[in-house]
Amino acid sequence: MSRLLPLVCLAAVSPILLAAPQVNLDLPERCRLLTRQYFDLRVEARGLTDTSATLVLRDELGNDIGSQFGTADEATTDNDSLPGDIDKAWVFRARSFPVEGVKTIVAEVHDASGTGSDTRKIGVQRFKARPGNKKNIILFIGDAMGESYRDAGRIVSRSTGGRFRGGFFDQLLEMDRMPYLGMVLTHSHNALVPDSANTASAWSSGNKTVNGALNVFPDNNDWRGTSEALLDNPRFETLWSYLRRLHGYKTGIVTTVQVTDATPAAEGSYTISRGQWQDIARQFVDGTFNSGPAFDVILGGGKTQFDARADNRNLIQELVSLGYVHVADRSGLNALAQPPDKLIGLFHSDAMTVAYDKLGYLRPADESSTATPTFPDQPFLEEMTAKAIASLSKNDSPFILMVEGGSVDKQSHGNQAAGTIWDVIELDRAIGVSRAFAKANPKRPTLVLATADHNQSMQVLGVVDGDAPGATENVRAESGYAGLTGGASGFPDYETDSTTGYPRNDNRYRMAVGFRTHDHTASPVPISAEGPGASLFTGIWDQTDLFFKMARVLDSDTTKLDRLEKERQRLQIVDQNYDRE
Amino acid sequence: MSRLLPLVCLAAVSPILLAAPQVNLDLPERCRLLTRQYFDLRVEARGLTDTSATLVLRDELGNDIGSQFGTADEATTDNDSLPGDIDKAWVFRARSFPVEGVKTIVAEVHDASGTGSDTRKIGVQRFKARPGNKKNIILFIGDAMGESYRDAGRIVSRSTGGRFRGGFFDQLLEMDRMPYLGMVLTHSHNALVPDSANTASAWSSGNKTVNGALNVFPDNNDWRGTSEALLDNPRFETLWSYLRRLHGYKTGIVTTVQVTDATPAAEGSYTISRGQWQDIARQFVDGTFNSGPAFDVILGGGKTQFDARADNRNLIQELVSLGYVHVADRSGLNALAQPPDKLIGLFHSDAMTVAYDKLGYLRPADESSTATPTFPDQPFLEEMTAKAIASLSKNDSPFILMVEGGSVDKQSHGNQAAGTIWDVIELDRAIGVSRAFAKANPKRPTLVLATADHNQSMQVLGVVDGDAPGATENVRAESGYAGLTGGASGFPDYETDSTTGYPRNDNRYRMAVGFRTHDHTASPVPISAEGPGASLFTGIWDQTDLFFKMARVLDSDTTKLDRLEKERQRLQIVDQNYDRE
Repeated sequence: MSRLLPLVCLAAVSPILLAAPQVNLDLPERCRLLTRQYFDLRVEARGLTDTSATLVLRDELGNDIGSQFGTADEATTDNDSLPGDIDKAWVFRARSFPVEGVKTIVAEVHDASGTGSDTRKIGVQRFKARPGNKKNIILFIGDAMGESYRDAGRIVSRSTGGRFRGGFFDQLLEMDRMPYLGMVLTHSHNALVPDSANTASAWSSGNKTVNGALNVFPDNNDWRGTSEALLDNPRFETLWSYLRRLHGYKTGIVTTVQVTDATPAAEGSYTISRGQWQDIARQFVDGTFNSGPAFDVILGGGKTQFDARADNRNLIQELVSLGYVHVADRSGLNALAQPPDKLIGLFHSDAMTVAYDKLGYLRPADESSTATPTFPDQPFLEEMTAKAIASLSKNDSPFILMVEGGSVDKQSHGNQAAGTIWDVIELDRAIGVSRAFAKANPKRPTLVLATADHNQSMQVLGVVDGDAPGATENVRAESGYAGLTGGASGFPDYETDSTTGYPRNDNRYRMAVGFRTHDHTASPVPISAEGPGASLFTGIWDQTDLFFKMARVLDSDTTKLDRLEKERQRLQIVDQNYDRE
Repeated sequence: MSRLLPLVCLAAVSPILLAAPQVNLDLPERCRLLTRQYFDLRVEARGLTDTSATLVLRDELGNDIGSQFGTADEATTDNDSLPGDIDKAWVFRARSFPVEGVKTIVAEVHDASGTGSDTRKIGVQRFKARPGNKKNIILFIGDAMGESYRDAGRIVSRSTGGRFRGGFFDQLLEMDRMPYLGMVLTHSHNALVPDSANTASAWSSGNKTVNGALNVFPDNNDWRGTSEALLDNPRFETLWSYLRRLHGYKTGIVTTVQVTDATPAAEGSYTISRGQWQDIARQFVDGTFNSGPAFDVILGGGKTQFDARADNRNLIQELVSLGYVHVADRSGLNALAQPPDKLIGLFHSDAMTVAYDKLGYLRPADESSTATPTFPDQPFLEEMTAKAIASLSKNDSPFILMVEGGSVDKQSHGNQAAGTIWDVIELDRAIGVSRAFAKANPKRPTLVLATADHNQSMQVLGVVDGDAPGATENVRAESGYAGLTGGASGFPDYETDSTTGYPRNDNRYRMAVGFRTHDHTASPVPISAEGPGASLFTGIWDQTDLFFKMARVLDSDTTKLDRLEKERQRLQIVDQNYDRE
């Protein structure tokens, strides 16, 4: 039995449980914030004698700290799912700590039966505006792009033209060529295997939450399932909002899927249920902690949430009336001669067509195309990324941009190897655009990060002979599969389409992959980093640290640190005999 | 068609192919060496008019460089498998380059029909003895310990006692806590998916070779399959031999499997066929490039190759007569009051019993135990590692030590989850021993590296309820498995055995894993690094670089580089609210 600890705890608190209010502070055990980062404090009490129960907030010394928090913005009763129980909740909206350090909050609830309490410690990290700090951040997320997905993208796109011989690549992926690598632990607050919502919340607002939640923590009325109950949870402000509100950053999101899907939603919206797409789009336009639009640039799919809404608002038109330039297709995007200050482009009603299908390639027999005749003119991710950067960087303001390859995950759920692999390649090309921008603009340094939210179960198993009887292209069964071979030289050898620059998929010897499940795994994901402070991103660390590391880079003078990289490069192994970048 | 490059080459050389000798230099395209590192140069010619054909070696300017290489040690004919063909081979043994740079070797063979040639470029990296350089290296290899294997070890051993809550660990693995992380590409010279021999050769001697080969490159008589043919291939000297020969290093290997198995064999033997166990043991004692024993410390299994040999030599007795202390079991090992200068311990005739079985745990129903009654008293890897370090470090000489958890791979081939996972934990405890040694001896700095040779297909899929009907412990089927659950809190919660310090495996909610195949995959493996020059090991790079990076650390003054690590630590995210190491 492994219940020893819970039993001890139960014994310790049971006298209180029977008599006094039971109190819960709706914050995770290891809550962390930046100085001045907004959060909502929600205190819940149940087992009350009546609803006149009162709340006192104290610090670790027992001092009343109520004046720091002011009056609760909301005080509600009858929230939980227990009809015979009297419960009450207090919510303090948009509070923050001005000074760094470990803060203790003790929430005491008093009623006629006595006093109950709950305690949380909050680690607050310094963030100071640094005069003249113009560092940009571009964060690339391959949704579900665990190590094997990067590998598959590397093997397909870097084996073309005989560039993969004798076990060596002439050139690695764009993301591989970034100097620092780390691994990011992705477990969610309530599960070993996370989803895209809680993982994106980890880097967007710095705290773990439950699967399905965007930048909020669960509360005791979630069971109702109403929009109201799903949108009132205690929130943690995102870095995108924080930098825009306090430090004049321009902000953007770019994705190949719906802009309201979990990964892009997490940079600018708050709800316990990632399925609240209509409200997520609304928050993008109306704002949440800030009034007004959350982003200067929004590019991707999911147009339905903007112009076919239950509330009859047309959010595209509203953004245009606020000065946004609207583009509807690839031609419109690429026709922008001058980058606009503010840009909205929604290129599909739903998730955009994946790279493999945009290229017009024939899918393997066991995969289905995502191409739809109604949207024949959609941009590639590298084109959207180029325009997003051009807009965000046109003025003096620094910017923070998230770019997602969103269908790596969606295609992998269906075990569609070609679909998922070519989407990794599309993302890598967008990373190349960003690296080139960063290299060309050294005086306004850009931290480029390439990672994933969580992993999935694809693995690279060998080389497959597509001409073998019964061969299933790109995917093989577990054992005894006739098509598996070392091939002519033991390596796949793809070809480049000279028009698009993408690899083709019609050669005989291809990479063989296998999927274990149709779902996520518990493994961490690689992160590659380049630019100021990039060395902070090596090692193995929690996904919530990504938020604090990005903030630390913007907050700190990394000059001395970045000098380390020069010394490292001096000693690094570079062999003129085979490094051919 | 992707054959453009080969076609061009063929066109360029085809006039020669038809008439003159066809020449092959038995070196990989991207051959690399250290200054003064021994290698064998083998030139093969076929399509000869007669066996009086002569060889001339030239540089890229056409200058005759024969005097650098001297007379061939061997000149043989009739090597290849073509009976109608006249062929000849010249071998120059134990040659080296004294000066760094890119060296070109053109091998020209002349006979009555004309002249044929082949060219290789060799990148030679500087290695200079640095006075007073006392840096040690301890290289940990988890055989097949790809990322998911580390994850499984972390989740099992760091979830005990409630230390894994709300998605956070209180403490990560020993290897996770090393500051730098990289990913190592493991493809072999002839295959996307490597084995343990070529991968170990990559870090041992700096060059890729074919699957199954140890520190040698294929030649044209391998097809014979005789011991003679399998042991005469052109060799690359290992770092263990090189440092012992030129720089007074003490050397060691420690493993949980046979000391002649591929991973430990690669530090001190040379053959195209990893199955030549008897000769590998012989090379350990007789030496290869050096005369005399290859290692000061040998600890592990595989006693049969030493004392039950076809040639009736007793290699254990020979080592004892050379001054080695011999221990036969755990009691003998731990009874060593003073660490001996030279130590041989062989604790099992074959692979040692795995950690799970040494602990006496009951295997899950679908796994079989490796415990054998004839070897009831075997040490754990952390005990062998402690004694190896004590012996190697007792004098002033620096040392290089490889420590392998060898059954991670063997158990994974059989999809035996408990067997493989507890072996990862055993390896991590040995890493802890080394990190403590390094920390306690800052004046003789030790570079500690923890990595794997290649990956396998296990993945962490979720939490399993062992009480569910039909539950298969630790392993679940692909879908619809009744036992899969989030558990009470969504996390497994193992318990520590207070006697051994290892986690037990008899709680209800356990980690669920799945295997995709019974074999290796093509994915890279993580490497963690701590100590002097550790920052050179982040990023993504080829496994042959591991050899050159280790050499670079020993060759270089890393003081400046390592000083900047302090700056990185200053800016690193450390939250007193939850970092509990």
